[in-house]
Amino acid sequence: MTDQNKIDLNSDVGESFGNYKLGMDEDVIPLISSANIACGFHGGDPSVIRSTIALAKKYGVSPGAHPGFPDLLGFGRRNMDASLQEIKDYIAYQVGAIQAFAAIEGLRLQHVKPHGALYNMAVKNTAIWDAVAEVLSRLEPRLILVVLAGTNREDLLKIGSRHGIRIAFEFFGDRAYNPDGSLVSRREPGSVIHDRELAASRVLKLVKEGRVEAKDGTEIELAADTICVHGDNPEAVALTRKIRETLIAEAIEIAPLGTFL
Amino acid sequence: MTDQNKIDLNSDVGESFGNYKLGMDEDVIPLISSANIACGFHGGDPSVIRSTIALAKKYGVSPGAHPGFPDLLGFGRRNMDASLQEIKDYIAYQVGAIQAFAAIEGLRLQHVKPHGALYNMAVKNTAIWDAVAEVLSRLEPRLILVVLAGTNREDLLKIGSRHGIRIAFEFFGDRAYNPDGSLVSRREPGSVIHDRELAASRVLKLVKEGRVEAKDGTEIELAADTICVHGDNPEAVALTRKIRETLIAEAIEIAPLGTFL
Amino acid sequence: MTDQNKIDLNSDVGESFGNYKLGMDEDVIPLISSANIACGFHGGDPSVIRSTIALAKKYGVSPGAHPGFPDLLGFGRRNMDASLQEIKDYIAYQVGAIQAFAAIEGLRLQHVKPHGALYNMAVKNTAIWDAVAEVLSRLEPRLILVVLAGTNREDLLKIGSRHGIRIAFEFFGDRAYNPDGSLVSRREPGSVIHDRELAASRVLKLVKEGRVEAKDGTEIELAADTICVHGDNPEAVALTRKIRETLIAEAIEIAPLGTFL
Amino acid sequence: MTDQNKIDLNSDVGESFGNYKLGMDEDVIPLISSANIACGFHGGDPSVIRSTIALAKKYGVSPGAHPGFPDLLGFGRRNMDASLQEIKDYIAYQVGAIQAFAAIEGLRLQHVKPHGALYNMAVKNTAIWDAVAEVLSRLEPRLILVVLAGTNREDLLKIGSRHGIRIAFEFFGDRAYNPDGSLVSRREPGSVIHDRELAASRVLKLVKEGRVEAKDGTEIELAADTICVHGDNPEAVALTRKIRETLIAEAIEIAPLGTFL
Repeated sequence: MTDQNKIDLNSDVGESFGNYKLGMDEDVIPLISSANIACGFHGGDPSVIRSTIALAKKYGVSPGAHPGFPDLLGFGRRNMDASLQEIKDYIAYQVGAIQAFAAIEGLRLQHVKPHGALYNMAVKNTAIWDAVAEVLSRLEPRLILVVLAGTNREDLLKIGSRHGIRIAFEFFGDRAYNPDGSLVSRREPGSVIHDRELAASRVLKLVKEGRVEAKDGTEIELAADTICVHGDNPEAVALTRKIRETLIAEAIEIAPLGTFL
Repeated sequence: MTDQNKIDLNSDVGESFGNYKLGMDEDVIPLISSANIACGFHGGDPSVIRSTIALAKKYGVSPGAHPGFPDLLGFGRRNMDASLQEIKDYIAYQVGAIQAFAAIEGLRLQHVKPHGALYNMAVKNTAIWDAVAEVLSRLEPRLILVVLAGTNREDLLKIGSRHGIRIAFEFFGDRAYNPDGSLVSRREPGSVIHDRELAASRVLKLVKEGRVEAKDGTEIELAADTICVHGDNPEAVALTRKIRETLIAEAIEIAPLGTFL
Repeated sequence: MTDQNKIDLNSDVGESFGNYKLGMDEDVIPLISSANIACGFHGGDPSVIRSTIALAKKYGVSPGAHPGFPDLLGFGRRNMDASLQEIKDYIAYQVGAIQAFAAIEGLRLQHVKPHGALYNMAVKNTAIWDAVAEVLSRLEPRLILVVLAGTNREDLLKIGSRHGIRIAFEFFGDRAYNPDGSLVSRREPGSVIHDRELAASRVLKLVKEGRVEAKDGTEIELAADTICVHGDNPEAVALTRKIRETLIAEAIEIAPLGTFL
Repeated sequence: MTDQNKIDLNSDVGESFGNYKLGMDEDVIPLISSANIACGFHGGDPSVIRSTIALAKKYGVSPGAHPGFPDLLGFGRRNMDASLQEIKDYIAYQVGAIQAFAAIEGLRLQHVKPHGALYNMAVKNTAIWDAVAEVLSRLEPRLILVVLAGTNREDLLKIGSRHGIRIAFEFFGDRAYNPDGSLVSRREPGSVIHDRELAASRVLKLVKEGRVEAKDGTEIELAADTICVHGDNPEAVALTRKIRETLIAEAIEIAPLGTFL
């Protein structure tokens, strides 16, 4: 974290597809500073990308790519035994597609955050982060790679410097953490935090002190540059709004990653 | 045509998909100067795009995007009642994807040539050319739009200047032409020329004189910047080779569009 | 119409896909007698088909297939230049898939109603109805083909008898009709009827008298076996409920096509 | 194996897709007795299914379904983290689609053999075989499930009797076996047998004696009902032809599974 008075809020958006609407993008985009835009593989389509970029532009939100596995039926949430080369090719393809829509609107793509199973597989296998970083460095070294904060921070920073790209660490305001800094599995009770006050206070503590209370009550250090928030449903939007308001009330500036990282 | 001593040879390549191989790209790419690379909608996939770009780079061939309708099952050859806005979005998405792979290889995308039904629909409806041109001008005005030579040349040039992009006209060396400059429909006998000598001599005449003999024996004026050749099968490659050799023997330089247009 | 005391209510259901939910199937299925289940091409997926069949079984609703064009992105609503042979193959494939899920639940598929652009193209080109009927007769002659009531009734009945299958004519309770019995285009004002009372009274008149008031005020004869109702949103469900209640109040029995046609 | 004078030869066919041709179906189908027809998920499409069924009918080959994961890009060869319920739904959908085309040709589907990663995952996880067997028993209990011979024979037979369906065990004539009856991984040298004489003699020994020489030279017992052969390329077809001729020369009858199992 480079500036304790600034933090980024990111959310997955642009996940609608054709006649299928998903997520409350119109509500959540005004609340965030970085938009992870689905790229057409696990969700999103060319027209949805265009309108999502327009929405991001309208609210001064920095656009990013949110590439996933080519599994629309499984919404990119199912692990696939794709090779590292295939993953690199999927990243390049999807990031390129989003870059085009950003360029048309006179915007520059800010970041890339893998989606769903691809993200989760990378969390368990650093070689995937390395593969993604390599693609970004060759494609556009100004792109920031968003990864999970909490474990193997040094390894991830090394990947960033090896490829000459910036790494941003993200924190989940609505998720419980293990004492080792990893996320508590969604299969365990209490893994997701629904209490808005609690979530907002955890985010605030993280931003101000770089610390979070783990599941067992111990307090751990965790450095993050961006907070992942959600806009799937009215409750998620309300939680996001609460986090935003709490940060602003404490004079924390919500700003896109690219402006302070 | 800006230089009668130069001509471009273009071919549709990169149309394989996953486990499915299509076309003799390794044979035809060394013979051409501009490659129209399928973008994953009607054919092609991220890995195929990467390897096709690499092949183009190896032989000094300028890469271009060959976007089509999202109809892999129909190979993009079936008219689809897509709106102009949908077409613009499909173009932006696909061109962006190819741009990414070009950028990774340190190349710049040279041109865009719509595929199959999208191309044929544009030939009959200038509003589609205009829509494509508009996207290219906003995305990257250095991109050249490849269109069919023969009819409405003035309209197409106006579209180019309105949007500030270059228009390249293409001639089909293996196709018969109607007296009005349009292609003889594939449903009519004699629409495709299989005789290599004849095809090569027609191309040569076109390049040197800007004229071609129409189906009814009359000779018509036709200005073209690029010749479309094929690599689908050994006969097509042999025809392409014959055209290439004939041009070289006559001291016509085969060069990418972007170098002389 | 074979029995003026009975009518079928049909609705398009099972159109969700993967993570994408579409339509209020849980609300509308209890109100209808025949379910047109999306088959995975324009909407629906294997798991959605299974759960939709289960829902139909629970409420004693007869299952039918609702095959469309392979255009998930366009929700099967865009005309595609598919050949009659391709259309026949698409019908066979999709109907077979639905038959399997029906068989697993111990049900027999009752009917087939093409979706979206395929339906609209058939309305304008009887050769498509003929192609579909031919497939059904070879696949399972007990399958009923649902077509639009209003025009070319005799031609459609001939197609049915030529192929030995039953034809069911459907009426749209929420649509305005032209004096020739065709639907008023959705592009024209007043094409869709939102007034529940009006829609219900039109349906009642159609069922009892076989007549409907056309757009110009004239009254035309129209014989229908089934009423198409909707469950896309709360208003559509309310309209469907109103139609159902009005029919029941007038002692019209709502029954699946296969029980009385 | 129920009859030592009869054996089935099965091959994966119908894997072409749209404009993409794969496999030499016209050459291999006349040589086999059971055809595993791709169902449109990993390969195949409605029109290819129709023409493949017609080819099977012409040569008296019994049709079967060859369902795979919904991963056309990976040709169904990549493990996917699909749930057992999703797998059951994919099986039902694909088998139903093939059944329809068989019914149209007056044929009855004989068997089901999962493809690629789905097959390999089932080999390692019996719960998948059980899930597939359950679907078949509910859909059509006359369907035979083809599984890998060599290991856990008793478990697989129990699955068959629990669900009331027949299990057929298949042997790979061109693959090396481990002493425990499992296939030598393709990553190991010598895993694939290219020598036609050797492959044919191994098949013959298996059919006549129920024994095969493992990689380490030991001879193991292996009971199989069907031999998997290939038609991907001219060499594969030649190997298949050699196996067929060798069997016939030894008075082994090549017959569809359903006639003797």
